[in-house]
Amino acid sequence: MATITTPAKSEKPNGFPAENQKQQIMKALVYHGAGKKSWEEKPKPVIKEPTDVVVKISKTTICGTDLHILKGDVPTVTDGRIIGHEGVGIIDEIGTAVTNFKKGDHVLISCITACGKCEFCKKAMYSHCANGGWILGNTIDGTQAEFVRIPFADNSLYPIPEGADEEALVMLSDILPTGFECGVLSGQVKPGDTVAIIGSGPIGLAALLTAQFYTPAEIIMIDQDDNRLNVAKTFGATHIINSGNVNAVEKVMSLTNGKGVDVAIEAVGVPPTFEICQAIIGAGGHIANIGVHGKSVPLHLETLWSRNISITTRLVDTVSTPMLFKTVQAGKLEPKKLITHHFKLDEIVAAYDTFGNAAKEKALKVILTNE
Amino acid sequence: MATITTPAKSEKPNGFPAENQKQQIMKALVYHGAGKKSWEEKPKPVIKEPTDVVVKISKTTICGTDLHILKGDVPTVTDGRIIGHEGVGIIDEIGTAVTNFKKGDHVLISCITACGKCEFCKKAMYSHCANGGWILGNTIDGTQAEFVRIPFADNSLYPIPEGADEEALVMLSDILPTGFECGVLSGQVKPGDTVAIIGSGPIGLAALLTAQFYTPAEIIMIDQDDNRLNVAKTFGATHIINSGNVNAVEKVMSLTNGKGVDVAIEAVGVPPTFEICQAIIGAGGHIANIGVHGKSVPLHLETLWSRNISITTRLVDTVSTPMLFKTVQAGKLEPKKLITHHFKLDEIVAAYDTFGNAAKEKALKVILTNE
Amino acid sequence: MATITTPAKSEKPNGFPAENQKQQIMKALVYHGAGKKSWEEKPKPVIKEPTDVVVKISKTTICGTDLHILKGDVPTVTDGRIIGHEGVGIIDEIGTAVTNFKKGDHVLISCITACGKCEFCKKAMYSHCANGGWILGNTIDGTQAEFVRIPFADNSLYPIPEGADEEALVMLSDILPTGFECGVLSGQVKPGDTVAIIGSGPIGLAALLTAQFYTPAEIIMIDQDDNRLNVAKTFGATHIINSGNVNAVEKVMSLTNGKGVDVAIEAVGVPPTFEICQAIIGAGGHIANIGVHGKSVPLHLETLWSRNISITTRLVDTVSTPMLFKTVQAGKLEPKKLITHHFKLDEIVAAYDTFGNAAKEKALKVILTNE
Amino acid sequence: MATITTPAKSEKPNGFPAENQKQQIMKALVYHGAGKKSWEEKPKPVIKEPTDVVVKISKTTICGTDLHILKGDVPTVTDGRIIGHEGVGIIDEIGTAVTNFKKGDHVLISCITACGKCEFCKKAMYSHCANGGWILGNTIDGTQAEFVRIPFADNSLYPIPEGADEEALVMLSDILPTGFECGVLSGQVKPGDTVAIIGSGPIGLAALLTAQFYTPAEIIMIDQDDNRLNVAKTFGATHIINSGNVNAVEKVMSLTNGKGVDVAIEAVGVPPTFEICQAIIGAGGHIANIGVHGKSVPLHLETLWSRNISITTRLVDTVSTPMLFKTVQAGKLEPKKLITHHFKLDEIVAAYDTFGNAAKEKALKVILTNE
Repeated sequence: MATITTPAKSEKPNGFPAENQKQQIMKALVYHGAGKKSWEEKPKPVIKEPTDVVVKISKTTICGTDLHILKGDVPTVTDGRIIGHEGVGIIDEIGTAVTNFKKGDHVLISCITACGKCEFCKKAMYSHCANGGWILGNTIDGTQAEFVRIPFADNSLYPIPEGADEEALVMLSDILPTGFECGVLSGQVKPGDTVAIIGSGPIGLAALLTAQFYTPAEIIMIDQDDNRLNVAKTFGATHIINSGNVNAVEKVMSLTNGKGVDVAIEAVGVPPTFEICQAIIGAGGHIANIGVHGKSVPLHLETLWSRNISITTRLVDTVSTPMLFKTVQAGKLEPKKLITHHFKLDEIVAAYDTFGNAAKEKALKVILTNE
Repeated sequence: MATITTPAKSEKPNGFPAENQKQQIMKALVYHGAGKKSWEEKPKPVIKEPTDVVVKISKTTICGTDLHILKGDVPTVTDGRIIGHEGVGIIDEIGTAVTNFKKGDHVLISCITACGKCEFCKKAMYSHCANGGWILGNTIDGTQAEFVRIPFADNSLYPIPEGADEEALVMLSDILPTGFECGVLSGQVKPGDTVAIIGSGPIGLAALLTAQFYTPAEIIMIDQDDNRLNVAKTFGATHIINSGNVNAVEKVMSLTNGKGVDVAIEAVGVPPTFEICQAIIGAGGHIANIGVHGKSVPLHLETLWSRNISITTRLVDTVSTPMLFKTVQAGKLEPKKLITHHFKLDEIVAAYDTFGNAAKEKALKVILTNE
Repeated sequence: MATITTPAKSEKPNGFPAENQKQQIMKALVYHGAGKKSWEEKPKPVIKEPTDVVVKISKTTICGTDLHILKGDVPTVTDGRIIGHEGVGIIDEIGTAVTNFKKGDHVLISCITACGKCEFCKKAMYSHCANGGWILGNTIDGTQAEFVRIPFADNSLYPIPEGADEEALVMLSDILPTGFECGVLSGQVKPGDTVAIIGSGPIGLAALLTAQFYTPAEIIMIDQDDNRLNVAKTFGATHIINSGNVNAVEKVMSLTNGKGVDVAIEAVGVPPTFEICQAIIGAGGHIANIGVHGKSVPLHLETLWSRNISITTRLVDTVSTPMLFKTVQAGKLEPKKLITHHFKLDEIVAAYDTFGNAAKEKALKVILTNE
Repeated sequence: MATITTPAKSEKPNGFPAENQKQQIMKALVYHGAGKKSWEEKPKPVIKEPTDVVVKISKTTICGTDLHILKGDVPTVTDGRIIGHEGVGIIDEIGTAVTNFKKGDHVLISCITACGKCEFCKKAMYSHCANGGWILGNTIDGTQAEFVRIPFADNSLYPIPEGADEEALVMLSDILPTGFECGVLSGQVKPGDTVAIIGSGPIGLAALLTAQFYTPAEIIMIDQDDNRLNVAKTFGATHIINSGNVNAVEKVMSLTNGKGVDVAIEAVGVPPTFEICQAIIGAGGHIANIGVHGKSVPLHLETLWSRNISITTRLVDTVSTPMLFKTVQAGKLEPKKLITHHFKLDEIVAAYDTFGNAAKEKALKVILTNE
């Protein structure tokens, strides 16, 4: 990280004099319109509000959403944005109103920024925070960088206990709370249930790992990639179905003696997988959508109207992060299982190549280390 | 009701000797294929199983579902079926295994027959009872008759307390538990909520009456019939919208300052009304479907995936019937408000004419009395 | 309110220069040890933290807890403390980190101060906030004064909409959320229930008003003061029992045909009333304690062990305040009913005399206006 | 089992002619007043109601409650009663109204008899069934016999799938649903929780096994018997405390950094263990009582009133039995772990000696096989 003496920015936050401050430079992955990204120099972020901190990234990762962004599918992300919304690091600078943390603290960054004081935050619906929500690597600069500014730090960071495994915890920024809250919690998984998860990518596998918190009797994993299905088997799936080879609906109905499943978790985000959910859901069951959908799907009310089912959608709130921490510390959840590849942070372009060819590379989550 | 001596039926239920029994005749409304019905003579029903009773109907009514049946839309209903699934009456004959009731008891008939001992009944999902469910006036003869056989009487009838208003209670056979369970309970109406009900027919009005059990701040009623909307106003709606005259979605969004509603209850059963629900639901809200749908509806996952909503479907279980009884007896619920017309039971064909022209006749529920 | 030039305090909060500031004087009700209080001059509070505001009190009231404090029963309250934890007012000064409000805003003060960012606040258990909780008029100066400093204002104040009735809203600082959360919510009052409330003072009456949000069939009010019972009757109680004249347990068991009640709410705080709750609770029922108890009570596990009941305790979290606002604005809740007497703020000592002789004076809540 | 020709009983149930029936004789464990029991001849039970079955016992066991009965502590049990309320067997005779089962079916007997049609059964509170509840081996003859009559068989028996392990399933008659429903469900155990279980006997261990359905982070087991604590360790306890050697309250508070536990499960039934629960419960926590108590316990409302806790009591409803079956079949629950000793059924007096000296014999559950 180089340092350049620059004139003060005109924007001068409350009580944080920038006069004579040397603007510092860091490296970051920057989006430059559909299909264009580069690992380049950007100003190191500074504290703007008393509730901000700046975190020096130790480890970060790449999310399927980042691939969508790079394709140009997420219009809120504009040219020049540093992307990334996951990571762990060390607090490098701290605003005057932050009280839960101090400089030097080791922290987990939540993918969801929560002000803690708007109508939605008071209802623990942080995903819809009036002043935050999913903004990191979206409407403000994100974590695929040497440093990142985190607004509302008291409500958007979590302390990492001494001795904890950093890599494992990177999985708690997004993927595990997402699989758990949007899939398992909304799907109301109960002991003895039969659960189907459609999509055995990182998010589906996160749902698979956390569904086991509630001891379902059976977890049926459906995907078209044998490698990912085999991973699912080692993660606790009791049945795997390659829907590219067999009729997944018939197979599930046969496994359940025609009753269908108690919970169907959609972890892909396209119409055909949501159709499977509707076809296999049992009377009284729950369809929990995790997938990010780009188009509408026929809802078969002509058959479902009398089936006493629920369908839920959810953007992760990360309200379960403290609980997930406890289960990791207690050895009940092993997030590290989801990590397949490691890179240095400045090799991030190569890491994107690997993650972008997940099937071929047998990639789940990659870890990028800022050394 | 005439009486004819007939030879015993070959079907001889456990311990109920039919030898030398005189087959008795009654009058009933019989379905004879799409568009054809008649008020005609049929054998008076007899006890077939020790858990049966035969009820002499005092009062019954007509449901929107009966209109669908008569159009030929319900393939499970076949030529010769006596229709109707609502009513009150007096126990006329009683099976040996029935213990909650005795001959002469005054009872309410539930539209849902529950065996009380299958997997679904044990979960209080009586609608999906393996041995019952919605069978009355569907797969077995129903209540638009002088007498009706009720299987599993202990779990399918409710005692009517002395002095109670029979007419009011007819509304508890189907319409009030349906509006309450499928709309209000599944929609999770809470104190202070803003609720929209799309459809101000008898079911929508039942949802309106019972939503008030939970003291929502606002109830917005949407329909295309000014008369029904005006009725809704007198039943407690705080706002009414004629969606034939104004853009209902825009109006609701304006009333809610762009936030949308906490609960949207669909009480019609066609795609346009379900579309309204999707367009007006607020983040974190609940869409509760009551309507009987004949075709699929586009589900707008491209916008809803991140809205943290639930959509529910339900065939009524009538688990709330005992509670509804209590609220009626306590004067907290006035089901009688829903009754607009009275007929004698043998005028049922005329009653169908009135009910079938509900808008013109300003009809909600009609009462048919067996004198 | 006089003004005296004083040297700056040595304690100088972030960015709030006190140099040359004139210390201002106000009047307040000050506790001076058991049995001693006076309306006297105190320094006007100033902003200490960027999350503070100073509120100019418009209206405040007296709580039963204040009487306990004055008797010396609350050891955390020390000599010199300004008491009071309820009120409405206008924001007079505002810290730099407060974003939900601005100077001049009309606000309701919650009796519970919530930081919004500790472990308990994140679980919406504000009562146990690590940095707040019930501190106003307890461990920091309170609201029975011309001005009060409110810490963590964004999470501890609520905006008062234009045109709202200030007096009514004073009841939302403490008494209504307390009756609702500790009594009604914890007691799980449901439509059709039979509820008993033991204690017809302000808190019991608040429970009575808010229990009706859930449309119980019957609410039995028990007290020893006929006036308060008659008030309860006008507030919606279906039965009243003067336990000084009749055996309340026998009377309740007779009213419920020996079954007992679904919910028993204890709103007094002494062993005999908690004993009544245990004696009248039906199988499967809920005992919700609101009362502040000074000693232990025998728990009759020898009979209750097999009765499938719950007993709950709770210090109010005031999480329901936004909902209560909505029901007041919608005309579903009329808090003003609880107000019996009015005083000017500087007549507070007389107001205490009235409130301290509640039975004789037929006093419920008194309103003190800062003119 | 011998056979004697006897005159018909005068009591002649519906449609079940006893004329000329030979009364059959079996052996059974009979209670003859405090301290007196014998293994003796009794008439083999017969069908009395059309909803009855007679089961030939294959395996049964002894419950702590049976020891209380034998001491004379349970006044509803009178001289001549066959005791026992757990077991599996084969249906030997079947009433005409039983439809879920047929003669020869292999069944699990629930300790709770449910009519399926009273007010309580309809609420799934089978423990309080108006016509059943805990009657086996209490007010009607029980399962420590060669045969037992089971009333309301459709709702009181569960089918045993082919190939299932009978011995393991005997644990599902009482002990596992009791530990689960009264302890784990009522205690609301959640992922990441810290749970304490006071009492490491069979019921406490059943709570320990089933608490793990919800993946708590820590389970602290407290008892005074090192052997039982060591068993608990092998069953999944993360910490064990011998309260005979150390101050259990201090130890728990130290383990939880002074916060106390999220859930405290009482599985003994005496005042000192309930006192421990009150002393270690954290703010917002749940005390779930399983123990059968003979006297009242001081409830420390003087400290608990503001702690936002719940205390629950419950007689098992056995509503969770179908779920427990599924988890056993799925290999998620291993009830067999609880079995330490085996006897033939006619060695039952010796089995009582072993079970009655549980500490010395290191006995948990004994299996009695009817060969």
